Amino acid sequence: MAELPIIELDEFAAIVGANNVLTASDAAPYLQEQRGRFTGEALAAIRPGTTDEVAAVVATCARLGISIVPQGGNTGLVGGSVPQHTPRSIVLSTRRLDRIRNIDALGSTMTVEAGVILQRAREAADQADRLLPLTLGAEGSCTIGGVLSTNAGGHLTLAYGNARALALGLEVVLPDGRVWNGLSRLRKDNTGYDLKQLFLGAEGTLGIVTAAVLALQPKPRDVATGFVGLRDPDAAVALLAALQDASGGAIVAFELMPRLAIDFATAHVAGAFEPISARTQWYVLLEATSGVAGAARTALEQGLARALEDGLIDDAVLAESGEQRRRFWFMREAIVEAQKFEGASIKHDISVPVASVPDFIRRADLAVEAVAPGARPYAFGHVGDGNVHYNITQPPGLAPAAWMARWDELNRVVHAIVAELDGSISAEHGIGRFKRDALPGVKSTVEFDLLQRVKRALDPDGRMNPGAMF
Amino acid sequence: MAELPIIELDEFAAIVGANNVLTASDAAPYLQEQRGRFTGEALAAIRPGTTDEVAAVVATCARLGISIVPQGGNTGLVGGSVPQHTPRSIVLSTRRLDRIRNIDALGSTMTVEAGVILQRAREAADQADRLLPLTLGAEGSCTIGGVLSTNAGGHLTLAYGNARALALGLEVVLPDGRVWNGLSRLRKDNTGYDLKQLFLGAEGTLGIVTAAVLALQPKPRDVATGFVGLRDPDAAVALLAALQDASGGAIVAFELMPRLAIDFATAHVAGAFEPISARTQWYVLLEATSGVAGAARTALEQGLARALEDGLIDDAVLAESGEQRRRFWFMREAIVEAQKFEGASIKHDISVPVASVPDFIRRADLAVEAVAPGARPYAFGHVGDGNVHYNITQPPGLAPAAWMARWDELNRVVHAIVAELDGSISAEHGIGRFKRDALPGVKSTVEFDLLQRVKRALDPDGRMNPGAMF
Repeated sequence: MAELPIIELDEFAAIVGANNVLTASDAAPYLQEQRGRFTGEALAAIRPGTTDEVAAVVATCARLGISIVPQGGNTGLVGGSVPQHTPRSIVLSTRRLDRIRNIDALGSTMTVEAGVILQRAREAADQADRLLPLTLGAEGSCTIGGVLSTNAGGHLTLAYGNARALALGLEVVLPDGRVWNGLSRLRKDNTGYDLKQLFLGAEGTLGIVTAAVLALQPKPRDVATGFVGLRDPDAAVALLAALQDASGGAIVAFELMPRLAIDFATAHVAGAFEPISARTQWYVLLEATSGVAGAARTALEQGLARALEDGLIDDAVLAESGEQRRRFWFMREAIVEAQKFEGASIKHDISVPVASVPDFIRRADLAVEAVAPGARPYAFGHVGDGNVHYNITQPPGLAPAAWMARWDELNRVVHAIVAELDGSISAEHGIGRFKRDALPGVKSTVEFDLLQRVKRALDPDGRMNPGAMF
Repeated sequence: MAELPIIELDEFAAIVGANNVLTASDAAPYLQEQRGRFTGEALAAIRPGTTDEVAAVVATCARLGISIVPQGGNTGLVGGSVPQHTPRSIVLSTRRLDRIRNIDALGSTMTVEAGVILQRAREAADQADRLLPLTLGAEGSCTIGGVLSTNAGGHLTLAYGNARALALGLEVVLPDGRVWNGLSRLRKDNTGYDLKQLFLGAEGTLGIVTAAVLALQPKPRDVATGFVGLRDPDAAVALLAALQDASGGAIVAFELMPRLAIDFATAHVAGAFEPISARTQWYVLLEATSGVAGAARTALEQGLARALEDGLIDDAVLAESGEQRRRFWFMREAIVEAQKFEGASIKHDISVPVASVPDFIRRADLAVEAVAPGARPYAFGHVGDGNVHYNITQPPGLAPAAWMARWDELNRVVHAIVAELDGSISAEHGIGRFKRDALPGVKSTVEFDLLQRVKRALDPDGRMNPGAMF
C-alpha cells in the first residue's frame, strides 16, 4: 500500500484525531468490499466525527490533490466504496457521523447524519409512531448516507419509491470542502433547481452526503402477508394488476421467486419450508397494508379468492400471525442465501417495464440455455417494480471458477435482452467500478455527454470517487 | 416589437410551416401572461408540431444566436413564459405537441407529449382505469410540459407528491438542438445520475421538455370528502396528524381556509354556501381515499368523531353524494375567485415545515397589522404540505393601486418570517421573472453557486429562457 507522507498524516490527524486516521493494516477493513470481489488501496482511511471535520478533511484533500472515496456501511455490491488504481486517494468513512439530530412527529420528518445505520433510523421513527419506509437485506449495517448516495431500493419500493423519494433535504460537503446546507424540511419548494437530486444516487462522485432530512409516513394499521403459487410470471404480473385494481393500490411488496429457489432453500437453509401445499412453478410473496384495521386482510382475501376462481393462481395462504409473517419473509432471505450451496452464480440486477417482466424471463431463459446448457436460471425479485435479480446458478458438477469465467459473456447475453426491452442493467445496485465500463454502452451519446457535464460542473478536478461511474 | 429578419423567418417557416411562425399581432397572445402582469416582446412565436421540428427550430436558434422562451399553456403566475428585455428571442410554444403516444395499463404508465392539456391526460388515464394524480386550478388549460417544467403542485400533493414525482422519463430538446431520449418506463434504474431531475422544475432554463412518461396509480375505490370547522390553524395541523395516524395515511387533500374566505365567497360568488352549520374561525376541506369500499368514509367518520370528542374541531360534515362532493370542491375554487371583489390582493405562495404553519400565520398576521392596519390577511391552501397562499386583501376603501404599490414592502415583511421558519418563498409557483431578483437573497452563496454551475453546464450560452430564474 502507498503511504501517506507523515506531514500530510499530521494534517489529517490534527482535524480528526490520530486514532481516526487509519493506515496500513488498520485501514484494511475499509479497502475490501464485503463479498470480497473488490480489494483496493488508499493512503489512509479517515473517520471524521462531524460535518465540520468532513469539510476540513475534504478541503485539505483539495489542497493536497488527494482523491476521496466516501464510504458508509461498505455494503454495496458494485465496488463503489473501494478505491482502486488511483495513485493518491483516501477512504472517507462517514460512520462516526451517527447522530439522529431531530425527529418531528407532527411534521413527519427526521434529520439524521450519514453514518446512522438504516435499521436504527427505522427503529427511531417507529418509536415516534412513524414509518421510515425503506427496508433491504443490508439494513442492519448499511448507512443512511450510503442508501441515499446509491438510491437504494428494497422490498417497499412498489409503494414508497426508492431512497431518493425519502429525502426532503440534504447536507453535502462539496469537493472543495464547502458545506451545502440543504437540510430542508419542506414538502414543497420551487425556488430553483432541486439540487439534492444531484447527490441522491450519485455514488459519492459529486460530493459527500453528511446528513439528510427524511420524510416519514403514517404507520399502517393493518398488514396482511401472503404466499401465492402460480404457473408463470405472466400470471404474477396479471395478479399484481388485479390486486392493485381491487385494493386501490394497497399492495406494498410483491416478490417473485421460482420453484428452484424453494428447492434450494429447503435443501440448504435451516428453517426454510414449503410455503404452500401446492407445488407450483412460481411463487409470490406479497404484502398489503391499510389504514383501517382488517381492511388489508379483507382486500387480500377477496382479491386472492377471485384470482383463484379466475384460474390466475393455483394456491394461496395468508399469514395468521406476526410470527408466520416473519417466517414468510425469512423465506425471501433464505432464497438469496441458498444459491451459494449450489455453486457459483452469475448475477444480474436488471429492470424492465413491469409488463415486460414475463417476456424478459422467457427470453433470457432461452438465451442462457442456448449458450450454457444445464445452467440454472434463478430469477427472483421486486417484480412490482420490474426489478429482477436474474441470477444464473452454474450447471451441476462444473468447477465454480469455470462458471465465473463466463461472467462477462453471460452478462452480454442477458443485457442484450434487457436493452431490447428498454430496460436497465442496474436497477438498484448502481454502477460503481463493477459496471463502469458497461455504462457508455447503455447510454446514448447525448445522455453520456449530459452525465459528464454534470460531473465536470460539480467535481471539475475529478477527485470525488474517481473510477466509480466514470 | 422587434422584427424577425425575413431570411430568418423563412428558415423557421421551412421547418414548421409559415402559418406556425406568428409575428406582430398574431404573436400577441403568446406574449402576455394571463393575469396581465407580464407583457413581453419577441421576434416571433413559433409552434412546432413534432419533437424533430422542435429540435430543428432550437438548432436554428443556436446557429443564429436567438434565445428561446418555451411556453405551454401559459398559465404560470410568475412570468416564466413571457420573454422580456431580451434583444433577440422567440417564444417556442409546445401546444401542438399534443399526442398521447401510449397508455400501458398493465405497467401503469402513460407517454404523452408536452402540449397535452393536463385534464385531457387525466381523462385518458381514467378511461384506462388508472389515476393520474395531479389536479390544480388551471388543469383545463395548462400543459403536461408546463406542469413538469414548473414542478406544479395542487390539491393532491399531500398523498402523491408534486409533478416531479409523476415523471418516470422525459424527452428533452437540449439548447444546442440535440434530443435526449430519456423516455424510460422503468420504476427503478440506477445507471448514472437521474438526469430527468435536472429538467423537472427547471422552468425551461435548461432545455425543452417535449414528452414524458408519467406513472399512473390505481384508482381509489372509496372517496370521502368533508368540511370541518375549527378554531385555529394549530387545531388544523393537529387534526391532520391525528387523522393520518388513525387512517394510516388515507388523507389525500387537506385545504385550510379562514372564515373571511367563506364570507367573501358567500357574498360574491354565485352558488357559494356556508359549508357547515357552525360558524367557526377556520375551515378545512379534506378528502380521504381507500382501496376498500367504505373504508375511507369509515376512517374519516371515526377520526372526526374522536376529534369532536377531543374538542379539536367544532363541527364536521361529510359529503353524502358525488354532487355534494363537487359542491365542497367548488367552494375551494370560489374562495380564490372571491378575493377580487374585495379589491386588490398582495399575494404569497409560501411554505414552511408543516408543524410551523400555525406559527407562520400568527406571526404574519401580527406583522401585517403592524405595518398595514385594516389589511385583511386571507391565508388558505395546502396545509398538509405546509403550503400557504398567504394573500392580503387591501383595507376597505383604499384605492387598489395604492395597495398594490405596497407589494414589495409587504412581501419583505412576510418573507422575513418565512426565512425565520426555514421556509420557501415559492412553494409551487416557481421563480420565473417575478421572483428572480429575490432568489439570491433566499439562497446561501454555496447554493446559488451550485444553481449557476448547473445552468452553465447545460446552457453555456444562456439562451434558454433568459431572465427567468437568473
